[in-house]
Amino acid sequence: MHVVVNAAMSVDGKLSTRRREQITISGRDDFERVDRIRTAVDGVMVGIGTVLADDPHLVLDDSEGRRQRRDDGRPTSPARIVVDSRGRTPPDGRICDDETETYILVSEAAPQARCQALTETGAQLLVAGDDRVDLSTAFDQLEAAGVGSLLVEGGGELIFSVIENELADELQVFVGSLIIGGRNAPTLADGEGFVGDFPRLSLDGVQQVGDGVVLSYRL
Amino acid sequence: MHVVVNAAMSVDGKLSTRRREQITISGRDDFERVDRIRTAVDGVMVGIGTVLADDPHLVLDDSEGRRQRRDDGRPTSPARIVVDSRGRTPPDGRICDDETETYILVSEAAPQARCQALTETGAQLLVAGDDRVDLSTAFDQLEAAGVGSLLVEGGGELIFSVIENELADELQVFVGSLIIGGRNAPTLADGEGFVGDFPRLSLDGVQQVGDGVVLSYRL
Repeated sequence: MHVVVNAAMSVDGKLSTRRREQITISGRDDFERVDRIRTAVDGVMVGIGTVLADDPHLVLDDSEGRRQRRDDGRPTSPARIVVDSRGRTPPDGRICDDETETYILVSEAAPQARCQALTETGAQLLVAGDDRVDLSTAFDQLEAAGVGSLLVEGGGELIFSVIENELADELQVFVGSLIIGGRNAPTLADGEGFVGDFPRLSLDGVQQVGDGVVLSYRL
Repeated sequence: MHVVVNAAMSVDGKLSTRRREQITISGRDDFERVDRIRTAVDGVMVGIGTVLADDPHLVLDDSEGRRQRRDDGRPTSPARIVVDSRGRTPPDGRICDDETETYILVSEAAPQARCQALTETGAQLLVAGDDRVDLSTAFDQLEAAGVGSLLVEGGGELIFSVIENELADELQVFVGSLIIGGRNAPTLADGEGFVGDFPRLSLDGVQQVGDGVVLSYRL
């Protein structure tokens, strides 16, 4: 599976404020870049933290992209995928509507009642890992289900896990020209963090987009 | 006073690991860039966290820069300045040696005994603020003492305070091609963080340096 991680952060590496409120970091020019990636991939992935904080819809809004996908015989939006060890995705969340396919990746520890409520929305549950989702296994299951290319959109806990498990092929970061600050604000890569053997990236491109910069890396 | 903030961070905005160990983020090409700034300024500033973690010397190592400064009739190294509300700088720290001038900015709350021990090293104490150093007042005192240009090197708590107090004129960030990760690792701008009215920067330059990128902003 080809995995692209994409996110927008402030100059100081933050995805949002310490209150975890969604804020506008990038502009229209960058939305178009992200729409192009969403148009190309089979699936778009977020972590449960992002679902609970933002109630994202994650469908492709761009009409040109939808037409292009339809012409190619693909669903108009890529599949939506939530990494959600305990099955906490709200069944009435926008990500569970019937606009396109939804996969919820849960662990064995997810309560049965929650799993059933999610299945009833039409979402497909994939189980991998005892206490937390085992991402390597889950990515294999997704690939077997036909997801050959994946866009990981965050948050920082998920992005760290994807990198820690060596599952990312590309990283694209829009660096918006603002400072958010905050020792408790979420960053591009949270989790436990590395203390040695840091993943080294290969800088692939630097591009000014609007009043920000897109940095592209290969992993 | 003209104030430049400069730091090296990972792609995810971290200055070091969650253990606060100093790690190599930039390379020789970037050291030369930083030496050029250090050669130009009257003072180099760090926070007490950086002093306690790294015991920095903060003198100019570059012999060409030292010669240039001497030819200009300036001290071979810029003054070293520590923001240190409680006077916790170790008197036997490298930053207190007699290679060049040292200013310790303390608050009224700094214990007298510590202040005296620091004064005995030859350091100059400037007192501003009740409980914490009042940066605006302290910067005025530094300017009155002849520091007309300042390089702020970190850590993230100090950088946030300098930006919060609207004291920075320029921000230069070397983005090294690695991921450090960690929700508790120090970032470029820590502190409480903003929740609205985010300082907007003006992107001034984007330059590949070695295997990283230097982003330059005006504030």
